[in-house]
Amino acid sequence: MKIQKPVYYGEYLQLPKILNAQAPESAKYGKAAHDETLFIIIHQTYELWFKQILHELASIRQIMLKPFVPSTDLSVINARLERVTSIQQILVDQIRIMETMTTLDFMEFRDFLVPASGFQSLQFRLVEATLGIKPEHRMEIEKQFFTSRLTAEDKATLEAAEKDISVFELLEIWLSRMPFSDFDGFDFWGEYSVAVDKMLTSDYEIISTNASLSDLVRKMELKNLDMTKETFATLLDAHKYAEWKAQGKVKLSQKAMLSAVFIFLYRDYPALQMPFKILNSLAEVDEKFTTWRFRHAIMVQRILGTKIGTGGSSGHEYLKSTTERNRVFLDIFNLATFLIPKSMTPELPVYIKDQLDIVYDSFQS
Amino acid sequence: MKIQKPVYYGEYLQLPKILNAQAPESAKYGKAAHDETLFIIIHQTYELWFKQILHELASIRQIMLKPFVPSTDLSVINARLERVTSIQQILVDQIRIMETMTTLDFMEFRDFLVPASGFQSLQFRLVEATLGIKPEHRMEIEKQFFTSRLTAEDKATLEAAEKDISVFELLEIWLSRMPFSDFDGFDFWGEYSVAVDKMLTSDYEIISTNASLSDLVRKMELKNLDMTKETFATLLDAHKYAEWKAQGKVKLSQKAMLSAVFIFLYRDYPALQMPFKILNSLAEVDEKFTTWRFRHAIMVQRILGTKIGTGGSSGHEYLKSTTERNRVFLDIFNLATFLIPKSMTPELPVYIKDQLDIVYDSFQS
Amino acid sequence: MKIQKPVYYGEYLQLPKILNAQAPESAKYGKAAHDETLFIIIHQTYELWFKQILHELASIRQIMLKPFVPSTDLSVINARLERVTSIQQILVDQIRIMETMTTLDFMEFRDFLVPASGFQSLQFRLVEATLGIKPEHRMEIEKQFFTSRLTAEDKATLEAAEKDISVFELLEIWLSRMPFSDFDGFDFWGEYSVAVDKMLTSDYEIISTNASLSDLVRKMELKNLDMTKETFATLLDAHKYAEWKAQGKVKLSQKAMLSAVFIFLYRDYPALQMPFKILNSLAEVDEKFTTWRFRHAIMVQRILGTKIGTGGSSGHEYLKSTTERNRVFLDIFNLATFLIPKSMTPELPVYIKDQLDIVYDSFQS
Amino acid sequence: MKIQKPVYYGEYLQLPKILNAQAPESAKYGKAAHDETLFIIIHQTYELWFKQILHELASIRQIMLKPFVPSTDLSVINARLERVTSIQQILVDQIRIMETMTTLDFMEFRDFLVPASGFQSLQFRLVEATLGIKPEHRMEIEKQFFTSRLTAEDKATLEAAEKDISVFELLEIWLSRMPFSDFDGFDFWGEYSVAVDKMLTSDYEIISTNASLSDLVRKMELKNLDMTKETFATLLDAHKYAEWKAQGKVKLSQKAMLSAVFIFLYRDYPALQMPFKILNSLAEVDEKFTTWRFRHAIMVQRILGTKIGTGGSSGHEYLKSTTERNRVFLDIFNLATFLIPKSMTPELPVYIKDQLDIVYDSFQS
Repeated sequence: MKIQKPVYYGEYLQLPKILNAQAPESAKYGKAAHDETLFIIIHQTYELWFKQILHELASIRQIMLKPFVPSTDLSVINARLERVTSIQQILVDQIRIMETMTTLDFMEFRDFLVPASGFQSLQFRLVEATLGIKPEHRMEIEKQFFTSRLTAEDKATLEAAEKDISVFELLEIWLSRMPFSDFDGFDFWGEYSVAVDKMLTSDYEIISTNASLSDLVRKMELKNLDMTKETFATLLDAHKYAEWKAQGKVKLSQKAMLSAVFIFLYRDYPALQMPFKILNSLAEVDEKFTTWRFRHAIMVQRILGTKIGTGGSSGHEYLKSTTERNRVFLDIFNLATFLIPKSMTPELPVYIKDQLDIVYDSFQS
Repeated sequence: MKIQKPVYYGEYLQLPKILNAQAPESAKYGKAAHDETLFIIIHQTYELWFKQILHELASIRQIMLKPFVPSTDLSVINARLERVTSIQQILVDQIRIMETMTTLDFMEFRDFLVPASGFQSLQFRLVEATLGIKPEHRMEIEKQFFTSRLTAEDKATLEAAEKDISVFELLEIWLSRMPFSDFDGFDFWGEYSVAVDKMLTSDYEIISTNASLSDLVRKMELKNLDMTKETFATLLDAHKYAEWKAQGKVKLSQKAMLSAVFIFLYRDYPALQMPFKILNSLAEVDEKFTTWRFRHAIMVQRILGTKIGTGGSSGHEYLKSTTERNRVFLDIFNLATFLIPKSMTPELPVYIKDQLDIVYDSFQS
Repeated sequence: MKIQKPVYYGEYLQLPKILNAQAPESAKYGKAAHDETLFIIIHQTYELWFKQILHELASIRQIMLKPFVPSTDLSVINARLERVTSIQQILVDQIRIMETMTTLDFMEFRDFLVPASGFQSLQFRLVEATLGIKPEHRMEIEKQFFTSRLTAEDKATLEAAEKDISVFELLEIWLSRMPFSDFDGFDFWGEYSVAVDKMLTSDYEIISTNASLSDLVRKMELKNLDMTKETFATLLDAHKYAEWKAQGKVKLSQKAMLSAVFIFLYRDYPALQMPFKILNSLAEVDEKFTTWRFRHAIMVQRILGTKIGTGGSSGHEYLKSTTERNRVFLDIFNLATFLIPKSMTPELPVYIKDQLDIVYDSFQS
Repeated sequence: MKIQKPVYYGEYLQLPKILNAQAPESAKYGKAAHDETLFIIIHQTYELWFKQILHELASIRQIMLKPFVPSTDLSVINARLERVTSIQQILVDQIRIMETMTTLDFMEFRDFLVPASGFQSLQFRLVEATLGIKPEHRMEIEKQFFTSRLTAEDKATLEAAEKDISVFELLEIWLSRMPFSDFDGFDFWGEYSVAVDKMLTSDYEIISTNASLSDLVRKMELKNLDMTKETFATLLDAHKYAEWKAQGKVKLSQKAMLSAVFIFLYRDYPALQMPFKILNSLAEVDEKFTTWRFRHAIMVQRILGTKIGTGGSSGHEYLKSTTERNRVFLDIFNLATFLIPKSMTPELPVYIKDQLDIVYDSFQS
């Protein structure tokens, strides 16, 4: 390989561009506010990290678009998801830097910024769209504050991303493709159903005979148990599940959900170790964005009080409301609902175990 | 001083007690579950940290109970509050350790723990009570699951703490004692009121003339502005403020709230530097407990799904509901609501400035 | 299953023991020092976490003692190592809590603690011994301050742990057992050697023709390159490697080291995904203990200055000296030394690839 | 105030510039390496944060350049230092993101980057220079790799910064200006000297009579005590201190050092609360850069092994060597050396106490 020319740090990182991109508005009005630089720079670091997250998600999408995902790519997918969550952790942690800016500090320049607002971050919307948030998931007010202010070009970029197949949809396809709902000569979900019944019966006994519970609590717990029973029944009944999905209680198809349950139950088999890691990483991505939204809302409340934000948004109340909406992988996050104790998990026939294993043991002869 | 006997690490820390206090229930049933040890130990570290927080809060209460708080004690109070928040940060961060326990791991021993539950932590209730949560702030269900399971002795301890004067009440007294609402010959709050009007008028202009706002948004923002106006009016009107307080919209008395506003506005004067730090630390205590509650609820959801907890509690939904209740220092947290830009803040007369300053400058002759 | 009796939070966690194990020495002399409680409690949490780490390591040792490690146990090993590193992260982070104690605060009780010292932590020594530190790795002074103060029973416990087979030794055995140095009809290490030569030749060209380097730097880099060449040669030469090992430059046997290199190079094959994760987690364990030792030394310096510690130790200088010694998995940490770019890595024959793969792809038909 | 034109998020943050500043070299050679984007982006975030740190330090320098520092500016200085340390914490924490890039990932593009190197970061050198690192503190090799590659303009910028008065020098002046070494009619340092003797005599007794110490350890501790005695003697003797300074054992002048000791001993007096906070924040700045250097060196070792870096530097060994050099505020960090227990600290005369206090108590009448 022939390296044509030397590369220097400053040019390579394009620092003249990066470090000359801070132009505080307050200075333009002759009222330079010290903290406006922090406000600009912290948002720029957020945007750089969003770009990196988009880079990782795009490459994951690329891999998952293949007719089938090569087994050697699974660890690549997971490594990149783990990178995304490590970035998200910094997104959360660096809110502490923003909190060193007090209300009075912020008030010195906020009037100059109208109507700029974090809601206008195109990249954050692209991250959401790439993960799987569709326009119909957004609130009307969100669209007002956001989409109405995009340039035509940006609007087109976003719409394209929203139309494109998302990581969520690719996950669903990948999970649906797995043959765990349908083994030759082994009725796995029948066995699972029997195990669930056994578990629920045991739970019922524990609650009924537990002398330490007050009548009120016992009654409540038995009611909970009935609901749990119904939940399991729904998972296994195509018709009920479809209703659930129509009501927005789950997002994944039944087939995909069943595969996910299977992976969680038999995660230690070599063939499922990496798929389990991937599902877990996706749940972590979901958890970290949820945490970020929450911490962000709290920070805004602390700096703005009950006042309106720079973008004319009513601030932290709205932000808090998005904490629980926009959870793309909530189904994975909630998967615990469908798990049963290891001791009750159906024993797989040898020919299935063999499929899930590798010849790896020969390595240790 | 005569030191009587040598002290050794293990005895000093009473390690034989500490390290022999883990007796997994699962082992008693002959079904030792590997992860139960983690479950026990992480809760024990939480309890140790709660003890440390109680130790700090008790000492702060002690200082604030003095007829007046010596100026040399203010930095002590703040240093201890900062210690509390550094502990809280670890309480939040170590949730990640708990999350290394998966649902299946937990299921191997959860049935053995009925009806133990984190809700039964006496110390956590004592922390809340010492800060300022009163029995009437608690939900009925919380009492069911909690108080009904305390020993008579623990119940008495908790009731005593709830009757005792709380940090919140001592803060209110301390703030009320400050003479900032009532200067000889200087109508501070009159001046403040003029400044607020000026600020709101400017805001009105910005919104009205801002061509970049859609009609819908402009209308909404003007409505917000009216509400902000009303908020300021309420702060300064004893009657309106009393109504607000009766409705639970604020907890502090009007006099205490005004002092807090004054401290925030003039925080750079030496006499107010430490009081400002203290108020900020209290807001931080509030924020960190709120974050901890949220992260805790999310973690429980991830491990339990929508199932019930070991204490018979319906789990994360309830936990999430406590995130926003039980915010003792929310008034301080929301103080931003009443602040105005530095450029509009009333200039204090020299004789008041002098009172807020120290002769420190002579040190730098 | 029949649950015999209800379990309550406080009893289950043995809180009466845990929360009554703080007896400040200063109070016994009538000079109660506020911060001594923190000093006790933070050390107790450290000891609790050490117990948890020992619990995880013991279980890993148990699994690795099996004649061969079942493939389904590999993810268990890795999950537990990841738990250990998540605990270590907290061990590092909570040093910040300790740093809220200033020198003056500490001076109020340190004289009462002579000669207690963190060096006397039996559990920390057990962690080190379990990982693989042998008595001969310890400095004389360390033994003076430490072993001389153990009870006979504790001494026996430690000696037993030091004699027992360590995680390091088990890792070596596990790696040595792998057949990657010895494929039928495929001279892998010959191919690797060719690839290394190609890489080094390319490096030589880059350095020689790089006009941007000063003569001094070019000379230095070429010298570095010679050393790198020698390093690779040593890896592949049994005799040279043995010398290296004798000099303490590496700890792993040559066979184990070669397996580790192979795993790193072909980490994406299903059979090697989990082994790679495990090696990475061990490097992480090493890194985190190194970081903890460093942060701990720095914290001691900040609180004690250049004074002697409570155990009569000369403090932070000694502590810093342990940062780089006692690195059990340094070989894994340094493995980068032996890697070559993917593009130059030898292509494996199909029959070997097949062995490293799973039939997983059929799942995605 | 008249706001002339609306401000939008993307333009305000100059995102077209920021987000189009990533041009991987590997792509230019037709060998696009996925991880090069991360490598670029993480360095860009570091540079943005360095810019923010420089912004804070410049403003602190501005304030401290005043003939005397107004008391109302002290909390501003401290708040900005606390912001710097909160940024430094993120600089340390985000190393974890870099560590998601493995050696093999890095090898796919490192050859394209020769001879770019983090050593060429102008801003990092400016941070060091602004804090107080002078050219004579740098190693020869550092200059080779660094200065030789700067543009003429950058070189001039750096030289100007190195000639400019540093935060360290301003701190020294500020401390020297304080009148704590020279009270009318009160020989403070005489009293301090008496207290030190008393403390050392007590230490001597404890060590001599401590039956739990082995002869070897006792001997060593008595030798340590002699050294401690000498250390205190040096602090108070202008001649000895000057020798110390000439040997590079301390950097601060004796007068400045004595003021710092006084502030640490009487930190709770209102006039000293903020100066104490400032000194502590500077020690924290020092600690966090030290930790960052250490973690950075370890990370480089993990990714590069013992190979050379992209800039032709011999990597982590050099990096580790900078961990302990370049500690600007080490004197403050080591101040613990000169402290004595509160109970032995000289009681100040009332007229001095009054100077250190404020009339604040009247606020609580």
